[in-house]
Amino acid sequence: MSRGRDSLDGSVPLAARARAVQPFHVMRLLARAHELEAAGRSIIHLEVGEPDFATPEPILAAGQRALAAGLTHYTPAAGLAELRRAIAGHYGRRYGVDLGPEHILVAPGASGALQLVFSALLEPGDRVMIGDPSYPCYRQVLRLLGAEPLSVPVGADSDFQLTAERAERAWSPGVRALVVASPANPTGSVLDARALADLHALCRERGAALIVDEIYQGLVYRVPDVTALALGLDDLYVINSFSKYFGMTGWRLGWVAGSVESIQVMDRLSQNLFIAANTPAQHAALAAFEPETLAILESRRLAFETRRDFLLPALRELGFRIPNRPDGAFYLYAGLPERVREDSMAFVTRLLEEVGVAVTPGHDFGDHAAGRHLRFAYTRDLDPLAEAVERIASFMERL
Amino acid sequence: MSRGRDSLDGSVPLAARARAVQPFHVMRLLARAHELEAAGRSIIHLEVGEPDFATPEPILAAGQRALAAGLTHYTPAAGLAELRRAIAGHYGRRYGVDLGPEHILVAPGASGALQLVFSALLEPGDRVMIGDPSYPCYRQVLRLLGAEPLSVPVGADSDFQLTAERAERAWSPGVRALVVASPANPTGSVLDARALADLHALCRERGAALIVDEIYQGLVYRVPDVTALALGLDDLYVINSFSKYFGMTGWRLGWVAGSVESIQVMDRLSQNLFIAANTPAQHAALAAFEPETLAILESRRLAFETRRDFLLPALRELGFRIPNRPDGAFYLYAGLPERVREDSMAFVTRLLEEVGVAVTPGHDFGDHAAGRHLRFAYTRDLDPLAEAVERIASFMERL
Repeated sequence: MSRGRDSLDGSVPLAARARAVQPFHVMRLLARAHELEAAGRSIIHLEVGEPDFATPEPILAAGQRALAAGLTHYTPAAGLAELRRAIAGHYGRRYGVDLGPEHILVAPGASGALQLVFSALLEPGDRVMIGDPSYPCYRQVLRLLGAEPLSVPVGADSDFQLTAERAERAWSPGVRALVVASPANPTGSVLDARALADLHALCRERGAALIVDEIYQGLVYRVPDVTALALGLDDLYVINSFSKYFGMTGWRLGWVAGSVESIQVMDRLSQNLFIAANTPAQHAALAAFEPETLAILESRRLAFETRRDFLLPALRELGFRIPNRPDGAFYLYAGLPERVREDSMAFVTRLLEEVGVAVTPGHDFGDHAAGRHLRFAYTRDLDPLAEAVERIASFMERL
Repeated sequence: MSRGRDSLDGSVPLAARARAVQPFHVMRLLARAHELEAAGRSIIHLEVGEPDFATPEPILAAGQRALAAGLTHYTPAAGLAELRRAIAGHYGRRYGVDLGPEHILVAPGASGALQLVFSALLEPGDRVMIGDPSYPCYRQVLRLLGAEPLSVPVGADSDFQLTAERAERAWSPGVRALVVASPANPTGSVLDARALADLHALCRERGAALIVDEIYQGLVYRVPDVTALALGLDDLYVINSFSKYFGMTGWRLGWVAGSVESIQVMDRLSQNLFIAANTPAQHAALAAFEPETLAILESRRLAFETRRDFLLPALRELGFRIPNRPDGAFYLYAGLPERVREDSMAFVTRLLEEVGVAVTPGHDFGDHAAGRHLRFAYTRDLDPLAEAVERIASFMERL
């Protein structure tokens, strides 16, 4: 059993691929922020990728009704039939995309959806092209499945997105899928219908699948709210979730849209990997598409827009470099001012320790210029945002 | 991109390892049972691995309180600190095992727990020894991770369990872990403290880890209720869940107990694979260890025991071969009577079509003598069980 791994006291060592999964830097920052708060310090949290809003009342009420009715048994692996229909109907009503429930599979969060899509598509050794920076779990989950993430640096010149032209230049043998997110984490950038169509055309030409992560869908500001599903379902997988727009983070409920054949395969994978998503959450989510809920969500969307419209110029004023206006999600991905010489990791640590503002270093999203970038999440209201800007300003003055 | 796979209309074929995941036979039976019910037929469901009992009232009430309080944000990936403490405390109170919360990680169901343990331990190509018959998802999840299930036939002579002696004979190079379940699905058989200790000693001697699936823990009848954790945590991983004993199937909440180092690695894996388990479920589960809940669970345990004590002799009377009394879970794994010549798949199909009793064929649990076995789940009350026995008797008479 000699495997070239360290073994303490004869114990079985953990797998190298598991040990290679690093904690997010933001977790260490968050723990330190909690320590400082416990010691009486005021901390403003702009590091959290979770809306401050609670789950909308009509969804909470539907969840309570489901519990009162004892609806706690397993659902089918692909989700409650009514919920699959409701999600499909949402695409018709809001996006004009005609889709049957057989194209929708309910999953335990976008995380579960991602795992299902990657598992359905990829063989060990397959390559998947991803922009850098991007959501870090893409790379980690791919590696656990034996696939190989192919990170392509993207910068402000392409709005931090993989374009068809950039993807074509970076293409290499074995690329089997391409992942983009719109609106994107950590940059808030949005792909328009044309950019999505070009990426899809490239993928189809190269025999690869396009995976579009639309987890922040609906959270767009003064640009069209689009879905890649308008392109049809050939070689296209769309991942979505009730977490962000619908305010249901802790419920762990998401979905995949794909071809009937792929949904059938993912249904069987889901039976084995998850059994099904949480049942009360599925019943609660049926209320997510009610007019009353959608009105609440629209008012929240406008609140996020107001926050962005405050924070974006304020950060630019302080010298942070955000060349393009991010049109979606609730993130600003900011380049450090020229005169700041230290790495973003050191910068965020000092920002937290010295003035009590928590933000996420670029290192959590990839390697490309990560040491020169920060992510600000406007998941706090205008007053704390204004206070944060003041604190950052005083910090910058002392630099 | 030629990969030797079929491609329809130029579309990207799904991965072979994903397409190889077969649906459970019981899913087809269940769908057919629903069709028959829709057509007005009476069907008795003994195929379902889910208690008929609803979630106990105090847990439902705690879930409703959590929703009323808007507790719907993400929890830490390893679970709510209070819940980890409550689970650790449960081991102390009920099993006399002294364990800190740092040894517990809350997961989205035993399914999630299984994925975390396998991901933490295994490299591609590692072998994992598993008894046949056993819970089918072990094999499927292992294959998705690039590991290799090594199925070892086990029969009534070892109570359908891998014993240390049997495992030692079947050992082969590359075996990195051994999985047992106690009480087991599909057989209801229970490993005693001595059998667990022997398996653990063998694994330690061979440099492998022992993974014990205790998802049916607590559901034992007139035998000691034990946990493998009494053996310590060296090279031992215990998987458990709120689904079966605690009656929380649809909530998707389970846990892993392991060494601190392994829990830390699984914490980071969980951040990437799941983010965390469902938040309202975690708050609800805090009520699972309340005396009021435990009293309800004890009365349910006694109800299962009464059902077993009815169904076991009744099936033996009809010629089904169940040599040892299964002491746990809510399953009887029965050999077909000698005079039945057809395969279990054909038998269960006819049983459903002709007399409306649904049971699971052995094929869902492995290959070893699968065509000669059925699983009866006593997840229905005494009246439907008695009716089922009458119907099976009339079916057998006509054979």
